Amino acid sequence: MSIRIGIVGYGNLARGVESAIGQNPDLELCAVFTRRDPGTVRISTQNVAVEDAARLTEWQGRLDVLALCGGSATDLPKQTPEYAKYFHVIDSFDTHAHIPEHFSAVDKAARESGHLALISCGWDPGLFSLNRIYAESVLPEGKHYTFWGRGVSQGHSDAIRRIPGVKDARQYTVPVEKALEGARSGRNPEFSTREMHTRECYVVLEEGADAARVEESIKTMPNYFSDYDTTVHFISEEELKRDHSELPHGGFVLRSGSMGKGHHALVEYSLKLDSNPEFTGSVLAAYCRAVFRMAAEGSTGCISVFDVAPKYLHPADYEEQRRHLL
Amino acid sequence: MSIRIGIVGYGNLARGVESAIGQNPDLELCAVFTRRDPGTVRISTQNVAVEDAARLTEWQGRLDVLALCGGSATDLPKQTPEYAKYFHVIDSFDTHAHIPEHFSAVDKAARESGHLALISCGWDPGLFSLNRIYAESVLPEGKHYTFWGRGVSQGHSDAIRRIPGVKDARQYTVPVEKALEGARSGRNPEFSTREMHTRECYVVLEEGADAARVEESIKTMPNYFSDYDTTVHFISEEELKRDHSELPHGGFVLRSGSMGKGHHALVEYSLKLDSNPEFTGSVLAAYCRAVFRMAAEGSTGCISVFDVAPKYLHPADYEEQRRHLL
Repeated sequence: MSIRIGIVGYGNLARGVESAIGQNPDLELCAVFTRRDPGTVRISTQNVAVEDAARLTEWQGRLDVLALCGGSATDLPKQTPEYAKYFHVIDSFDTHAHIPEHFSAVDKAARESGHLALISCGWDPGLFSLNRIYAESVLPEGKHYTFWGRGVSQGHSDAIRRIPGVKDARQYTVPVEKALEGARSGRNPEFSTREMHTRECYVVLEEGADAARVEESIKTMPNYFSDYDTTVHFISEEELKRDHSELPHGGFVLRSGSMGKGHHALVEYSLKLDSNPEFTGSVLAAYCRAVFRMAAEGSTGCISVFDVAPKYLHPADYEEQRRHLL
Repeated sequence: MSIRIGIVGYGNLARGVESAIGQNPDLELCAVFTRRDPGTVRISTQNVAVEDAARLTEWQGRLDVLALCGGSATDLPKQTPEYAKYFHVIDSFDTHAHIPEHFSAVDKAARESGHLALISCGWDPGLFSLNRIYAESVLPEGKHYTFWGRGVSQGHSDAIRRIPGVKDARQYTVPVEKALEGARSGRNPEFSTREMHTRECYVVLEEGADAARVEESIKTMPNYFSDYDTTVHFISEEELKRDHSELPHGGFVLRSGSMGKGHHALVEYSLKLDSNPEFTGSVLAAYCRAVFRMAAEGSTGCISVFDVAPKYLHPADYEEQRRHLL
């Protein structure tokens, strides 16, 4: 008997969850729910229903876990508490600053209805968070470093696209090699924002646009670019398509700590991902299994990856896990 | 109110647990239990009882968790099931092949007495196991690689010391850089034992010993050395003391996987430890906290790190963990 999964939304992340489900024989994609006209949405998996999101509640009892693949800005703050009334749910809410309030809203809905809801799943928040909590628990005296990249930041790419005169753009976040070396050195240096990451922008201009003005607008944009060393490359639409159509990402979580007798320890975790949405989708798929198992054991309310014992993620039975992975 | 911890044994690992407890304000070392004459054992922490191990059961109700710091060959197979009758316990049992039978024996004792027992804690088994299970859950199609070192293997050092004519020895396990590169390449190569690690031996001879014969005995020793490229350096006792008195270790866990649409992902975890026993002790200290919290919630029986949700390891309350680490 497979774990029956529904996906809400059908963007990059949803397609990542879909392809990850295809790699896990105990997971089954049962339906994709969309706010578009379902007749216009073609999905990759054969024989799977594409439904109007408005009909979601009719699927109660026919889905074990619902994977919410909308955006953190406007979709998830509404959808996750709403759908937790009817299903066990999982989302990838990634606005770190608003996690506490999202958690509260989802927890209330999930407790009242007796469902289990896992929020903020993926790799950051997600696997990177796990590495932060494990390493800080083991090395209480020390310093954390999180580096992102080299990879495409969709938020920063979107910010460039909103500048008048820009037709399309791709922004790469790049960790500064010297800062990475410093983080590994055991000297626990402090870094400014500028010292840790640089930003590389590949921009296609509208015809007749003023390149110098666009470059200035990017480099001085508050929050997104003004605190970074930013380089801007103007390229053709063909070049963007040819060289920058993928969504790679990754990064590093380090903890540099000193142990009781003054000895140093360095814990380093890194990801190199050819596709950010496919990897995030793979994490969500594994956590769908965990949500199903924990809900079956009676867990309810809102949880994060910190609440999930690793055994729930892996398809093998627990004895086999100990034999082969411990 | 601190978590009251007792330590059984007082070797390198016990001293590592002791110094880690000193870094965690919510943990308190209450007693060290020894099979030696307690009057001869001087410990680092002030005002802590040193007791004859034979009197351990008299401490029921005065300790929250007992950390068993004996060896996996003969101590722990007896001690962990025995002491789980009286206390919540934790051990670092690291003979991978015998984990299933150790688990069964400890589980029986712990269930019958209503205690919680965590076995096989440390970094391998332990943090490395966690990385294997997380990465394999997320990337079901792929390949694992575990490399150890560069670091001192105490088992291999002991094996050299048992050779006639050897006064003292230190053996370093060294990962082969080329194999590490292969593991990261995305080509998922297969490696022989010899291709992954080399072994470096630093040997002090007894006066008049035959160096060529000792070297031959090391290099041809089955299981320990015969499957590896081994180098042997003869040094003086002073050099051994000066250059090889520490116990550094570390290693790498990699998973190279392909995602649903054929994109590649590389997950890499590494440790660089100036002191193996201090780091292992730091892991045990964090898991003492987890055992205490899970036992307070009613968990009993034998568990491994796979059963422990990350939140139990970190001293902060769960809301604060989400705010700062998620």
